[in-house]
Amino acid sequence: MDAQLPEPEPLKTLVDALKRLPGVGVRSARRMAYHLLQHDKSGALTIADALAHAVSNLRHCLRCNNFTEAEVCSVCAGTRRDPTLLCVVETPADQNMLESSHGYRGLYYVLMGRLAPLEGVGPVELQFERLLTRATDGVVTEVILATNFTPEGETTAHYLTELLRARGLAVSRLARGVPAGSELEYVDASTLAWALIERRDA
Amino acid sequence: MDAQLPEPEPLKTLVDALKRLPGVGVRSARRMAYHLLQHDKSGALTIADALAHAVSNLRHCLRCNNFTEAEVCSVCAGTRRDPTLLCVVETPADQNMLESSHGYRGLYYVLMGRLAPLEGVGPVELQFERLLTRATDGVVTEVILATNFTPEGETTAHYLTELLRARGLAVSRLARGVPAGSELEYVDASTLAWALIERRDA
Repeated sequence: MDAQLPEPEPLKTLVDALKRLPGVGVRSARRMAYHLLQHDKSGALTIADALAHAVSNLRHCLRCNNFTEAEVCSVCAGTRRDPTLLCVVETPADQNMLESSHGYRGLYYVLMGRLAPLEGVGPVELQFERLLTRATDGVVTEVILATNFTPEGETTAHYLTELLRARGLAVSRLARGVPAGSELEYVDASTLAWALIERRDA
Repeated sequence: MDAQLPEPEPLKTLVDALKRLPGVGVRSARRMAYHLLQHDKSGALTIADALAHAVSNLRHCLRCNNFTEAEVCSVCAGTRRDPTLLCVVETPADQNMLESSHGYRGLYYVLMGRLAPLEGVGPVELQFERLLTRATDGVVTEVILATNFTPEGETTAHYLTELLRARGLAVSRLARGVPAGSELEYVDASTLAWALIERRDA
């Protein structure tokens, strides 16, 4: 969309700024700007404050790399978890999902991304050295790789498996198989293939 | 997604704030927050500044209701346009699109919305009185209704037609028909029906 009209500069600047949000192009950015300026000015200021506040107050937990206000996040600082288990996830959202399953009581490490060579994200960008240092603290005995089951997530898991096994750690991966509560008729073929390969005694 | 984990407060606040953007749910808001905090802190501050700057510096043009920094926007303040023609659009984006067609040299009025009774947007919310005052300034002779060809846009056009005709103004609507450059085989049926009804001498 060629802006043929002399647009007021603050509006143009705002649209350009909103385009930096992931998944937001020029049309969405415009829609957001119009909405906030027309219908939700207080929302605009709330977002502005929240952004500035989060940028200046959040840092990465020294142990698990998740966002935190303190040096060490409350999960890592807690004493009620099993410190011999370390679960590696891509994002804080993944950690939240695992927590909501109530199936895990160990600790976490958040990669904040996954290997994506085409995007220039390699082991250095993801600071794999930090994870290795964390995992070889002498307390952790097993690392559970819970990266996504996407090509990038799988690659990341393979790569980390080699690095961690070489350091004498037990390394496991989340099970692949038929989702809970699902009917076989509606499960995709590759999931069924995996479920067959990884079948277990009944 | 139940946040089972004690999330740091600035992150939670930021996700809640980003959810106020139109079309952004909790998952998108999280993805945006993670992205900005992990990969684009300067972008986060840029957005914050742009929002605050736009909110405090933009207002509505007294004549056309579009966003502007001055009392009257540069389009309305210009002298090279035909002041007898007034084109009514829903949003500044629509005005931009019309401008980029290079097919119009009159002035504009931006409704900043459309009639949507179910959402509580009526003639009062859209300040139709302001449009009527603008259109009956004694200079405008024809009002071109360029609201969208959606049910809401059509309703708005019908409603405005009555109001404006009652005040002695010529009122027109953008032509409906086959899009430029398109093959009839791929044009939808209702567009073809309109094109037949509104056929013109060759």
